[in-house]
Amino acid sequence: MTAATAPDLLALDRAAQDLLFRAARTANTFTDEPVTDAEVAAIHDLIRYGPTAYNGQPLRVLLLRSAAARARLLPHLSSSNRAKTASAPLVAVLAADVDFHERLPELYPHRPQARDWLTDRATRVEQARFSATLQIGYLLVGVRAAGLAAGPMAGFDAAGVTREFFPDGRHEALLVMNVGRPGPGSWRDRLPRLTTGDVVRTL
Amino acid sequence: MTAATAPDLLALDRAAQDLLFRAARTANTFTDEPVTDAEVAAIHDLIRYGPTAYNGQPLRVLLLRSAAARARLLPHLSSSNRAKTASAPLVAVLAADVDFHERLPELYPHRPQARDWLTDRATRVEQARFSATLQIGYLLVGVRAAGLAAGPMAGFDAAGVTREFFPDGRHEALLVMNVGRPGPGSWRDRLPRLTTGDVVRTL
Repeated sequence: MTAATAPDLLALDRAAQDLLFRAARTANTFTDEPVTDAEVAAIHDLIRYGPTAYNGQPLRVLLLRSAAARARLLPHLSSSNRAKTASAPLVAVLAADVDFHERLPELYPHRPQARDWLTDRATRVEQARFSATLQIGYLLVGVRAAGLAAGPMAGFDAAGVTREFFPDGRHEALLVMNVGRPGPGSWRDRLPRLTTGDVVRTL
Repeated sequence: MTAATAPDLLALDRAAQDLLFRAARTANTFTDEPVTDAEVAAIHDLIRYGPTAYNGQPLRVLLLRSAAARARLLPHLSSSNRAKTASAPLVAVLAADVDFHERLPELYPHRPQARDWLTDRATRVEQARFSATLQIGYLLVGVRAAGLAAGPMAGFDAAGVTREFFPDGRHEALLVMNVGRPGPGSWRDRLPRLTTGDVVRTL
C-alpha cells in the first residue's frame, strides 16, 4: 500500500480526507476571529450521532467564554499551555458525566434496566471515561469538519480542573481543548506516524 | 439552531457528513463480502494522523481472520454478540499498547525525555487507554470513510480477551469491533441523542 493509492480506496473524497485528517493539524496559535455558539451547536449536531456504550453519551462540554472562567483554568495548565489558552478564541473543558446512567431509560429505551447495571460507581466511572473519550475523538473530527482547528492539551491537572469546575462530584475532566482558526506560526513540524505494519497484526 | 441549518455551517460537505455521522449506523448483520487488507491499510493510513498525547499512538489492532482465532474470541463475548461476530467478514480486537512510551524518542523527537515521564506503569496505563480510545473514535470514523459499517461491541470480557490474545502483559483490550457491509435487518431504530443544550454549558 503506497500513500498514493490508499486515499483512492476510501469512499470519502480526498478534500474531506484532507480537511479531517491528512492536512489537519493541532493548532498552537489562533487568530482572534470568534468561534460562535452556532458553530459549536453545528459541530455537536453532527457528532452526537457517534456510537457510545448503551448509547449513554456521557461527554459534557464546558465552554469557558468569560475572562473570569478562563482565569480559573490557567493555573491548572502546564506552563507551556497557558499563553495559547489565554488567547484562544474558545476554550472547552471536556468532561465525562459519571452519572450518565440516570438518563439511560430515555436513551436506551429498549433496555431501561441498563441503568441498574451501572449502580457501582467504579464501573460507571470506567464506562463514562471510555465513551466520553470516544466522543472526544468524534468531537475533534467535528471541529475540523467545521473548518476550525483544535488544540487538544493533555498537559493539565485533571483533578484540579475537576474540582474547580465540577464541584458536584459527578463529572471528571478529561481534556482541555482550544478551538479557533490557526494564527501565524501555528504549526510545528508534523510528527512521525506509525505504519500499518506497526499497528495492525492478523491472526 | 435547527437541524436544517446546522449542516450548512460546516465546511464538510453534506454527503461526507451523512457518510461519517448522520446516516452512519452501528451494523448488526453483514453481507459476506470480504474486507481486504488493502482496505484496512487505507483506513489506517487516513486515521493515523489523528492527534494523541505525546504523539504516542498506542492503539494496536488485531484482526481475527482465521476460524481458529475467531473461535478463541467468541466465549469472551456476551451471548447477544456471538452470532453476529461469528459471521462478520472482519473482526478486530482494539487494544492499547501499555508500553507505547518505548517508541517516544522516535515519535516525539523534540522531547525524547518524555519516555522517562512514563516509567510509572499505572500512569502509563491511564495514558495508553485514553489515547488509544481517542484513536478508536478516529478509527470508527475511518471505517465509515471507507464506505464500511462498524459494529463496536462493549459487551465482552475485556480481561479475558486481554489474557487470550495479549499474553505478553503489555496490551489491554479495549473494544471488539465487527466491520463489513450491512446485511439484511442490520439496523435497529436510531436511538435518541442528547441535544446541544443537554451537553454544552458556558461560563
